[in-house]
Amino acid sequence: MQQGRDIRRVGDGLNEKCGVVGVSLGEREAARPLYYSLYALQHRGQESAGIVTHDGFQQHSHVEMGLVGDVFDEDSLSTLRGTAGIGHVRYPTAGGVNSCCAQPFAVSFKSGSLGLAHNGNLVNADEIRSELEDLGHAFTSNGDTEVIAHDLARNLLEADLVRAVKRTMERIHGSYALTISHDDTVLGVRDPEGNRPLCIGKLDDGYVIASESAAIDTLDGELVRDVRPGELVVLENDGSGFDSYQLVDKENAAHCFFEHVYFSRPDSVIDGTLVYEVRRNLGRALWEESGVETDVVMPVPDSGRAFATGYAEAAGETTADGEQRAEDDDGVEFAEGLMKNRYVGRTFIMPTQDERERAVRLKLNPIRSTVEGKTVTLIDDSIVRGTTSTQLVQLLRDAGAEEVHMRIGAPPIVAPCYMGIDMHTREELIAADRSVAEVRDEIGADSLGYLSIDSIADCLQKSQADLCLGCVTGEYPYDIDGETTDRDVTRPAIGAEAPADD
Amino acid sequence: MQQGRDIRRVGDGLNEKCGVVGVSLGEREAARPLYYSLYALQHRGQESAGIVTHDGFQQHSHVEMGLVGDVFDEDSLSTLRGTAGIGHVRYPTAGGVNSCCAQPFAVSFKSGSLGLAHNGNLVNADEIRSELEDLGHAFTSNGDTEVIAHDLARNLLEADLVRAVKRTMERIHGSYALTISHDDTVLGVRDPEGNRPLCIGKLDDGYVIASESAAIDTLDGELVRDVRPGELVVLENDGSGFDSYQLVDKENAAHCFFEHVYFSRPDSVIDGTLVYEVRRNLGRALWEESGVETDVVMPVPDSGRAFATGYAEAAGETTADGEQRAEDDDGVEFAEGLMKNRYVGRTFIMPTQDERERAVRLKLNPIRSTVEGKTVTLIDDSIVRGTTSTQLVQLLRDAGAEEVHMRIGAPPIVAPCYMGIDMHTREELIAADRSVAEVRDEIGADSLGYLSIDSIADCLQKSQADLCLGCVTGEYPYDIDGETTDRDVTRPAIGAEAPADD
Amino acid sequence: MQQGRDIRRVGDGLNEKCGVVGVSLGEREAARPLYYSLYALQHRGQESAGIVTHDGFQQHSHVEMGLVGDVFDEDSLSTLRGTAGIGHVRYPTAGGVNSCCAQPFAVSFKSGSLGLAHNGNLVNADEIRSELEDLGHAFTSNGDTEVIAHDLARNLLEADLVRAVKRTMERIHGSYALTISHDDTVLGVRDPEGNRPLCIGKLDDGYVIASESAAIDTLDGELVRDVRPGELVVLENDGSGFDSYQLVDKENAAHCFFEHVYFSRPDSVIDGTLVYEVRRNLGRALWEESGVETDVVMPVPDSGRAFATGYAEAAGETTADGEQRAEDDDGVEFAEGLMKNRYVGRTFIMPTQDERERAVRLKLNPIRSTVEGKTVTLIDDSIVRGTTSTQLVQLLRDAGAEEVHMRIGAPPIVAPCYMGIDMHTREELIAADRSVAEVRDEIGADSLGYLSIDSIADCLQKSQADLCLGCVTGEYPYDIDGETTDRDVTRPAIGAEAPADD
Amino acid sequence: MQQGRDIRRVGDGLNEKCGVVGVSLGEREAARPLYYSLYALQHRGQESAGIVTHDGFQQHSHVEMGLVGDVFDEDSLSTLRGTAGIGHVRYPTAGGVNSCCAQPFAVSFKSGSLGLAHNGNLVNADEIRSELEDLGHAFTSNGDTEVIAHDLARNLLEADLVRAVKRTMERIHGSYALTISHDDTVLGVRDPEGNRPLCIGKLDDGYVIASESAAIDTLDGELVRDVRPGELVVLENDGSGFDSYQLVDKENAAHCFFEHVYFSRPDSVIDGTLVYEVRRNLGRALWEESGVETDVVMPVPDSGRAFATGYAEAAGETTADGEQRAEDDDGVEFAEGLMKNRYVGRTFIMPTQDERERAVRLKLNPIRSTVEGKTVTLIDDSIVRGTTSTQLVQLLRDAGAEEVHMRIGAPPIVAPCYMGIDMHTREELIAADRSVAEVRDEIGADSLGYLSIDSIADCLQKSQADLCLGCVTGEYPYDIDGETTDRDVTRPAIGAEAPADD
Repeated sequence: MQQGRDIRRVGDGLNEKCGVVGVSLGEREAARPLYYSLYALQHRGQESAGIVTHDGFQQHSHVEMGLVGDVFDEDSLSTLRGTAGIGHVRYPTAGGVNSCCAQPFAVSFKSGSLGLAHNGNLVNADEIRSELEDLGHAFTSNGDTEVIAHDLARNLLEADLVRAVKRTMERIHGSYALTISHDDTVLGVRDPEGNRPLCIGKLDDGYVIASESAAIDTLDGELVRDVRPGELVVLENDGSGFDSYQLVDKENAAHCFFEHVYFSRPDSVIDGTLVYEVRRNLGRALWEESGVETDVVMPVPDSGRAFATGYAEAAGETTADGEQRAEDDDGVEFAEGLMKNRYVGRTFIMPTQDERERAVRLKLNPIRSTVEGKTVTLIDDSIVRGTTSTQLVQLLRDAGAEEVHMRIGAPPIVAPCYMGIDMHTREELIAADRSVAEVRDEIGADSLGYLSIDSIADCLQKSQADLCLGCVTGEYPYDIDGETTDRDVTRPAIGAEAPADD
Repeated sequence: MQQGRDIRRVGDGLNEKCGVVGVSLGEREAARPLYYSLYALQHRGQESAGIVTHDGFQQHSHVEMGLVGDVFDEDSLSTLRGTAGIGHVRYPTAGGVNSCCAQPFAVSFKSGSLGLAHNGNLVNADEIRSELEDLGHAFTSNGDTEVIAHDLARNLLEADLVRAVKRTMERIHGSYALTISHDDTVLGVRDPEGNRPLCIGKLDDGYVIASESAAIDTLDGELVRDVRPGELVVLENDGSGFDSYQLVDKENAAHCFFEHVYFSRPDSVIDGTLVYEVRRNLGRALWEESGVETDVVMPVPDSGRAFATGYAEAAGETTADGEQRAEDDDGVEFAEGLMKNRYVGRTFIMPTQDERERAVRLKLNPIRSTVEGKTVTLIDDSIVRGTTSTQLVQLLRDAGAEEVHMRIGAPPIVAPCYMGIDMHTREELIAADRSVAEVRDEIGADSLGYLSIDSIADCLQKSQADLCLGCVTGEYPYDIDGETTDRDVTRPAIGAEAPADD
Repeated sequence: MQQGRDIRRVGDGLNEKCGVVGVSLGEREAARPLYYSLYALQHRGQESAGIVTHDGFQQHSHVEMGLVGDVFDEDSLSTLRGTAGIGHVRYPTAGGVNSCCAQPFAVSFKSGSLGLAHNGNLVNADEIRSELEDLGHAFTSNGDTEVIAHDLARNLLEADLVRAVKRTMERIHGSYALTISHDDTVLGVRDPEGNRPLCIGKLDDGYVIASESAAIDTLDGELVRDVRPGELVVLENDGSGFDSYQLVDKENAAHCFFEHVYFSRPDSVIDGTLVYEVRRNLGRALWEESGVETDVVMPVPDSGRAFATGYAEAAGETTADGEQRAEDDDGVEFAEGLMKNRYVGRTFIMPTQDERERAVRLKLNPIRSTVEGKTVTLIDDSIVRGTTSTQLVQLLRDAGAEEVHMRIGAPPIVAPCYMGIDMHTREELIAADRSVAEVRDEIGADSLGYLSIDSIADCLQKSQADLCLGCVTGEYPYDIDGETTDRDVTRPAIGAEAPADD
Repeated sequence: MQQGRDIRRVGDGLNEKCGVVGVSLGEREAARPLYYSLYALQHRGQESAGIVTHDGFQQHSHVEMGLVGDVFDEDSLSTLRGTAGIGHVRYPTAGGVNSCCAQPFAVSFKSGSLGLAHNGNLVNADEIRSELEDLGHAFTSNGDTEVIAHDLARNLLEADLVRAVKRTMERIHGSYALTISHDDTVLGVRDPEGNRPLCIGKLDDGYVIASESAAIDTLDGELVRDVRPGELVVLENDGSGFDSYQLVDKENAAHCFFEHVYFSRPDSVIDGTLVYEVRRNLGRALWEESGVETDVVMPVPDSGRAFATGYAEAAGETTADGEQRAEDDDGVEFAEGLMKNRYVGRTFIMPTQDERERAVRLKLNPIRSTVEGKTVTLIDDSIVRGTTSTQLVQLLRDAGAEEVHMRIGAPPIVAPCYMGIDMHTREELIAADRSVAEVRDEIGADSLGYLSIDSIADCLQKSQADLCLGCVTGEYPYDIDGETTDRDVTRPAIGAEAPADD
């Protein structure tokens, strides 16, 4: 049943929005550094957390549903013995909490033990799984990670570590940033397209591999470099260094631009660029492409803040028409006009039907004096479903805004992400079947401006050919049933704007 | 490393002290009957509980650490859809809480899904695991159950269900009572020695397979019969009946006598005899073998109660010398002399060193008037380490007992149980290297009497050749490294008594 | 509104079914002995637990909802500094969990601090509360205990401790067993009728006052004697002894007979008699009054066990007609015919409507071989609502019992208890408006026998005039609105039996 | 004991850092609006939360330790019946969690029921408590709130509501913003100095009184005005309006300036000024008073953000010397240079000694590219102990900052706050006995600038005579033992700066 396959592929067992880490220290126990790293990566997944270590003789594992701070305590950390290990945090997927897929996934096999922490999504997991089932393998979960683990274990029967990883990499297709522990050896692997981020850091007494450089900072380490697409990195057991093996080469990468726009921490350096800088530059480009002169520009906190800072900066230099500002023209004022209540958490009791409109004000409250009687530009990173944008526009109007203009630091999202990021079906996407003007009307803004794909590529300092732009073009760098691949096509520039007078 | 193997085999992944159940109903959802069954089997395991069901299309699983009442709620039961399923409760092993081994173990493989709930311990799990690892299999746990699941899944690639089970049974050795779900078909399998109990029950609208008949009672069902050693029972999907396949035949069974002495519920019928009746008869035999005339006889609650009832009954009929009681001789008075505090639970804060002696009085308090100035016989089911016995003898002396005689409803435990029951090493066993007189002195009793092996066999209505008596003879019905097998030897009768004047 | 007042008086703020303790040690910290005592008294209340101590300078308090083992941990015990203190456990009342009334109740006032732990119920709390409100007092709860605390605090403004307690005792009417801490002085007070139990124990290094002697046993102490009705006991601060003040004298006591029948631990000595002995003797009397010759006699576990033991003993000596047994007549066999599942706890998911009948079998399962084809006598301590009795009779019939006869170790409960014990309204009581024959028919038994009030008094070794028999006579030793007082009337003997051929 | 009194006064029972709310609706249940209000006020207290309502017949209360989201669920809200009620959130005080003082405090007394929610601290609570104790009152807590409740209840015996409140206000001295429920009438009271904020809001169907206007926004209401110092506001039962009574008049107010600097939400309007505006203006003034030309200016997130925005704005207009910027001089660049990890919560496992320095990087991570090789100005709202400032300066230096200049949006804190705000003793305050230059050296900054008191008053648009400036002057608007009162003195201007070349 084709439909069923589709649903499973994009619903079950996805690990795209996860954080992974691996640590190898010469002398020091790995558990606490892994624990602090996972704290630094907590934004990449709040559903489950886990650590697997190896003490030279035995593998130790502690994986549970919940936040890092709830999953681990002094007792559990103390049982995770050994100077080498890996860790994982996992994002709640649309399909709900799914304990089956908490990671790292740990197995023992003929040649020892394996631990795998996976960020990404395979597009041919079903095929490989099916091949392994034909050979008698039985699986405890629907997850891609178990498929990789079984395949790797099987290859390790007949090949050394590097060749076994190479064989597995040649079989699996899709996105994967992996940290792997083979007994007490820690590995990092990044898929040939480099879709998900992975980087290497140097500590005083060892090395670390992590999804984001912020995890390295947390350990007081130094970012060495990103793991290259198609590269295998093997940390030395004594913490003295690492070996690199370029196992698979592809002409083009397919870095996910959404990591920079939304998913990664602003203080992380991803594929050579600082996320905060990128967002600020995206904000500058947004002004240049579709700036609108209003009394005030304000971010949606916290996601729009870096964009809005850049936008306002650029607005201080040139006018919306691209002219140099006159000396006495202060440009657009930057202000925080929406205050975020940081205490509204999971246990919140939802308002009844007639209290529904109040719900958004519990989370975000407008500062009336910043808004009242003014024309306002609201900056956010992206629009997915559009519900929040609609509520915020209304909120600002209720607070007395004369006009509300919306500017978005990314292109319209028109197609699902098969690599993750919680944008699963076209039905959910407000821009999938609407023009920019229609989206503008739907959310009730006076004008709406998205950023162009060209600017995305420019600000990320990448060629469009080296980015995965599937969600904004509908053309994917992977073969996905029923979707177009972009590997052979020339991409049009999509970025668009719906002015107030549309 | 021989030592290492021994430790692993008897320490990790044991499932001997567990409860299993399987249910197939024509129309009704299986989850709630499974839930109630697990409540009825909770005494067989308090570490974890789990249920696996299958709704004809998909397998559903909910397995967690904790008591049945904590693991399941209305929500989790409602997700366990389907009219067929299996359940499991697991005992905390000596090595501490072990989340890896919570069951049922669920996998999917080429031909569908498998769920396994296992009570028992294989003696050749390492060998089979090793063979499977040679074929590329990777294992997520140290447990025997996963080994059985992988072996069965592999056999199912090439054979139908009955032949696949037969092949697996021919490969695995040791004790196993299994409930298995293969998609929505529920199976029960008992090892060729029938070491662990398993029985079949009939409900109004289906059939149930369970470790003990008390689980059947809970569902208002009727006990049909025990599953026979070496038998496979396959429940009909529509709840209309079951098919039986006698897959392996052995000359002798090796039923665990300790199930009757301690482990099973008194209200269960195990291998044709009611546990309560057996215990009462063991008590009667105990009087006949080693009765002592004292003012009062009292049980250790609750484990010694049925034994003490039988002992006192017999004591009312004949004297300790075996003579008919005189008309005016009331014999030994039965009384509850120790009161149990049922609220002392897991969270109890242990007393400091100098409060230590008070600890036992929190759990068991002597009734002074029953004890003071009297000669007392205390009845328990067995002595393992001897610490509790020592404390109780002292407690009764402190309460004013003139004499304290101890009588035990089982022979001295002189050797480890490799099939389970938490008696792992000879060092822990007070009787392993002590004569009965030495044990008597160690626990401080005036006299000590154990029951003979002959009486065990008589009361269980079994031939000694059909019992596993390893823990009381040191000779085992299985090949265990470093231990003697009893399959070829004639067993001596061991039952013994250390009179007060020894 | 008169009705409202009645409801409040018997519904809110009742403390009858509670346990209290007080400890004064010369040198040792009081917190841990108080903690162990509360464990020993846990059967008297599972809703909340609390300890108040005083270290000579300051009062410390820890009171929470929950079981003793959940309320306290090492941390909380360590903050409860001081060698003197009191403790309390509270029973869930019919009206549901009520955090307002968790105790001990602690206040500070002009002359220092007061802690009160109360077991009992005042009949004039409203009046005294009203008088105190006229003087400006404000109350944080509906509880009697706060009323006593305020009254005592007020009296302490003008009188020394002993006289202040006397004044308060002269004002309050009803049942109260109190432990009180006035700064670091610990007191015990028992109401002039001695309705609720309270006793004094001697430890190696101090003294203890507790609801039941079992708490003293737990601390390895010796029972000195009961606190006398109307007596105040003041423990010496240095643990060297206690002073006694007989503050109020009444001609007659009004001891609650139900403490012996049901509420107290079997191993406690209450008002001079061991509860286990009393229950056994009540069982003997029950045979003598209403014995019926059946194949087997069995207790409802655990409440009926001591009664059944005595009943069976007596049945071994004489026939139901009171004749000496013939030599070859073994009388009625004693057996455990119902097995209790000790794991069915609070979190149990209730069965659906059509599974309802199975619910009782989860808790109590009949042993078929003991029951099948036999005439059975089932012994319990009392019948309140009758629902459990009805279910058990049916259970035994379903298990094949030829006849089921019920014998009860107390008289019919025909009226509410205003002093506690969860028998609040006549509507709930099966015997309130039914003859014994009607109750027999209602529960479906072949015959039903209650014990007479005369036997109650005899076995408790008390005059009926010194007992509170309100719940079995409808005449109370206290003035209760709308009820008859028994202080001036002669009580009829009620004990009754409904034979099978009624 | 004078010392003891001092300690108690500033340690126990303080309610200064709390949030209060009261709601009276004509028809709608009050519980949910109170619940959402408390969410909006959660920043004012995370230790406990509570709601008291009255349904016309009976008072209902639910108060527990914990966050609003954990304390309440659908069940508890549904028991809080009635259209009128009050709520409270409480801050964890230095002395640790203190369940005794969770609020609202609820009592019943002669004339009905009272509920009190208190934000503030009385300076003569001991005296009034002592007077009430002389009259026989007993207290369950050390809290001021219970003292107010008892005093008010006593006054209500002899006076109507308004006069009773007036009498109590004439007796109590100190800071108090109160919401009170007298049966189903809701009141708001603010102390004569208006030390703590309290305001009135209008809803569609009723009125609300709350600590901050953000709570009114959350309910979609409109801010009517602040409650005036010395005013009593009584909400109509039917939600139609409110009555005002100016009960006490003082020449000067003593508004806490720290509410604007740190404690209140930026989106709240307090005493006529929007907190966000005030902070931004304080930032502007900070530039004007002690601006330093550096490459970049960055806030300590989130507390310094509004200050830094204003500071950078002003820096774009004039130079540090107060000159108009040259056309080609962009001034100081504003950037986010420290990223906050919002997931580091309470359960965080503290690093070991040698990991200590890494701890701060878990919470705040520098963005290297923003900092490296640059001169940096770091903006925060205030410095209390100085430990965080020291760590942040070091963090920025480690990240490569050439210079680190610190600018603070408030004057040096030199004296304890007896009205709250967690600045209890001079020993804890880094500026109490240090010059600005010494503080600069202590925290390791290149220069340090505080704001002047004059600017505080200017930006709050208040006379200094109407502010409480005790913590920055050491002179208090209340009579506090051992401290100077400022009511008769002329205050010096303190604001100060320690330049780099000091």
